[in-house]
Amino acid sequence: MTGRGAGIRLDEIVARLGGELVGDGSLRVRRVATLEGADRDSISFLANARYRKQLAHTAAAAVILAPSAADAFSGARILSANPYLYFARVSQLLNPQPSGDGCVHPSAVIETTLPADVTVGAGCYIGPEASIGAGCRIGAGCVLGRGVVLGAGSILYPGVSIYDGCIVGARAVIHSGAVIGSDGFGFAREADGSWVKIPQVGRVVIGDDVEIGANTTIDRGAIDDTVVEDGVKLDNQIQVGHNVRIGAHTAIAGCVGIAGSTRIGRRCMIGGAADIIGHLDICDDVVISAAAFVTKSISEPGMYSGAPAEPHREWLRNAAQLRHLEAMANRIRELEKRLARLEKKT
Amino acid sequence: MTGRGAGIRLDEIVARLGGELVGDGSLRVRRVATLEGADRDSISFLANARYRKQLAHTAAAAVILAPSAADAFSGARILSANPYLYFARVSQLLNPQPSGDGCVHPSAVIETTLPADVTVGAGCYIGPEASIGAGCRIGAGCVLGRGVVLGAGSILYPGVSIYDGCIVGARAVIHSGAVIGSDGFGFAREADGSWVKIPQVGRVVIGDDVEIGANTTIDRGAIDDTVVEDGVKLDNQIQVGHNVRIGAHTAIAGCVGIAGSTRIGRRCMIGGAADIIGHLDICDDVVISAAAFVTKSISEPGMYSGAPAEPHREWLRNAAQLRHLEAMANRIRELEKRLARLEKKT
Amino acid sequence: MTGRGAGIRLDEIVARLGGELVGDGSLRVRRVATLEGADRDSISFLANARYRKQLAHTAAAAVILAPSAADAFSGARILSANPYLYFARVSQLLNPQPSGDGCVHPSAVIETTLPADVTVGAGCYIGPEASIGAGCRIGAGCVLGRGVVLGAGSILYPGVSIYDGCIVGARAVIHSGAVIGSDGFGFAREADGSWVKIPQVGRVVIGDDVEIGANTTIDRGAIDDTVVEDGVKLDNQIQVGHNVRIGAHTAIAGCVGIAGSTRIGRRCMIGGAADIIGHLDICDDVVISAAAFVTKSISEPGMYSGAPAEPHREWLRNAAQLRHLEAMANRIRELEKRLARLEKKT
Repeated sequence: MTGRGAGIRLDEIVARLGGELVGDGSLRVRRVATLEGADRDSISFLANARYRKQLAHTAAAAVILAPSAADAFSGARILSANPYLYFARVSQLLNPQPSGDGCVHPSAVIETTLPADVTVGAGCYIGPEASIGAGCRIGAGCVLGRGVVLGAGSILYPGVSIYDGCIVGARAVIHSGAVIGSDGFGFAREADGSWVKIPQVGRVVIGDDVEIGANTTIDRGAIDDTVVEDGVKLDNQIQVGHNVRIGAHTAIAGCVGIAGSTRIGRRCMIGGAADIIGHLDICDDVVISAAAFVTKSISEPGMYSGAPAEPHREWLRNAAQLRHLEAMANRIRELEKRLARLEKKT
Repeated sequence: MTGRGAGIRLDEIVARLGGELVGDGSLRVRRVATLEGADRDSISFLANARYRKQLAHTAAAAVILAPSAADAFSGARILSANPYLYFARVSQLLNPQPSGDGCVHPSAVIETTLPADVTVGAGCYIGPEASIGAGCRIGAGCVLGRGVVLGAGSILYPGVSIYDGCIVGARAVIHSGAVIGSDGFGFAREADGSWVKIPQVGRVVIGDDVEIGANTTIDRGAIDDTVVEDGVKLDNQIQVGHNVRIGAHTAIAGCVGIAGSTRIGRRCMIGGAADIIGHLDICDDVVISAAAFVTKSISEPGMYSGAPAEPHREWLRNAAQLRHLEAMANRIRELEKRLARLEKKT
Repeated sequence: MTGRGAGIRLDEIVARLGGELVGDGSLRVRRVATLEGADRDSISFLANARYRKQLAHTAAAAVILAPSAADAFSGARILSANPYLYFARVSQLLNPQPSGDGCVHPSAVIETTLPADVTVGAGCYIGPEASIGAGCRIGAGCVLGRGVVLGAGSILYPGVSIYDGCIVGARAVIHSGAVIGSDGFGFAREADGSWVKIPQVGRVVIGDDVEIGANTTIDRGAIDDTVVEDGVKLDNQIQVGHNVRIGAHTAIAGCVGIAGSTRIGRRCMIGGAADIIGHLDICDDVVISAAAFVTKSISEPGMYSGAPAEPHREWLRNAAQLRHLEAMANRIRELEKRLARLEKKT
């Protein structure tokens, strides 16, 4: 619960972000908070009706809510059609990304030329022919191989590895332990069962505004490239196989595995711990539920669930029966007995 | 199979740890071993009846067993109500954690003041305002951000990342590649499907005596903190989402995923590769089976299994039918035929 | 799509690798490519009949194919009984592993003696008594503990951690973020629910020609060793528990979890995201499908699928019913109604 010392006036927020202000515009807020955790320096929000009753007790100086809920709170408030999105923007105002100090730590090993304002932490290694954009902040212990491209304004947290030749766009945020460009899992089998490695000569090519979570791994392509398009958001511990393509603005939650050569469309949302086998085609605007196991291509937008995955409505109906399997077995047995009795009679 | 050179006398063990010694107390043991792998310098144990027949052939100098099994071995033995727990303590005696050398490697970059006896490996970075407790051992290449607190006696293996402002209690053991405090996965969606990042301004707060496995990730809270209470044990490659709370002494096996804002009680045990969706409440003393998928809050202690998870006994009965689904379908078809025949007759 | 500048003549390839050349042996190829992505400097291959129609349009200078498909392409071609394996070898010719420069970066901290031709990147730490084989290439930021053995010709990508005392054979390829030798998850429980750590005193012992993917973790043994035999290939984000043994030439895809003390045979293939519980015995030549959950030992070679896993043929039949559970429930209800009606009549 950090926040900008002096805070921001509510009328200043509305001037910048739009929305309708109800109440005293000269009030200052210094931090974002939940309705429950708010104090009189906080601005909070109501995005989910089930928290509505908390409005009565919150200590927040101001609350962001939908116009339809405008009367549910009597203090200062900002009305917005999408309170959660508005809250995200307010939080960005109150919690700006600290800019780097523009220093390259003397212990970093830099074998390329850097723009003047790049910040590089202790113990980093940046290889020859790497191209680092203006304003990048590279945390301690990151390793960027030969010829890596990192777009302007990107942030690498400590301990990120980017292999030779991989491309990352502007404004990336990559968390600790992420590995970009490791070899795909490609081997041909000898008659005796041993394996011959297929050199993985493709790259990883990542668009602009991509976020990559901690310890997520993205393999380089076997022959062509692995591609992550603009605006994709990847959570922690995701595995992206070689030659996968992930479409723009797709968001993928933690622990998902995507096997090689699968193509995922734009604006998809994939729940945590889902797994998708290789060589599939998932169209735009697909939602995959948490822990689903996708074994077939999907050509219709919509929600898919289950293992193996099926359209969500069908899955709901079938999954409901999973808890009644024993009862079903008993009913079948009972039917068989009754029927045998009847057959004997007639 | 290392061990203390000179070894320990059996009577010394019993003097320190309790238990009843039967046999020659002057015998020395130098290492712990399985019954099968033991030699005459080894102390072994019987904690599982199915290994009982190995007592006849073991070369162990001494065996730890329950009083009820006292007569199953004729050599020196230590009787304890919980032989496995007793064995753990004996192994700790024979394999003490090596203390650090109290040196800070000259290649480490330290921007705070350290107690005299802290050991810091090559290439570490410790940020300003970080507070490191007495006797900590920090392996090569660890990165601790600004304001990190690490309690006394903690051990970080090489390559641990702890983000700014996170708190770790005393006597922590954190393995390589673990990431503490990376951003939670929080984005609000624009009308066009693109994502606006919600700054993750909470911290990770970890209690005392916590162990964290290799490549496990724990995200910082979105607004409030992510909390791991005292005595929690986390295995490798676990993902803990933002604002999760894990109760004291809960143990979680490898590859588990816990989505955001879920609260897990005290003394729970969660099997490997289980997944738990977000915003749930799991009460104290719950056991979750390996590979379970928990989709609902749990308010009764006990064991839960399956995907989706249900009480273990019910799951056992239902899961048994999963292997008979085709047979069930055939029996239904057969019933339909016989019934149709009968209906025609009457 | 990199490749050797000057390229290789087709007759030179056949002289080295065998196979039958049809067409102009003086043609040079510079890179491998898919049939679709090929240009006139490329050599491509046909290993899967479903791409056969692409032969008509490919720009490839030469194609590798099976003798039975020899007439399907009119350009230069190499005939081989196993085109995919042949392609792997051609790709190795065209994309040789760059050898290291044999330099130890001045920022590396080396507490052992190294052979003359070992390459060590910036910021590495190699502990006392470690033994590094000839020709090894160790990427930036790797940490090898006391007494680690690394066989000749091994490649460690940046940020690999190998704990004290672990053994890795010759020609290993280990990707970034892999952790070898972290503690197994071993604790004994006190009466009050708290945990006592069991020191993990075994090692990890890895054979020759093993590849280990990014962020994969292999725990050291509790008492005896964890063992990975020759020729094993592990993909990314795999978790191998303490005292597991993986037999020679077994290949395991990404995100698999193997719990402690399980033994896996030789030449097995384990699909992505599969999980295997502890203390099982899997025999040689077993194939486990992606996302399977193995809960019992397997003593017959063959393919196993499902959660819980069963022989693949049985699983196919049962899994087909999973999508008809609601229909089954409806048919049972209908049968009950009809039967009741009939019972009333007779």
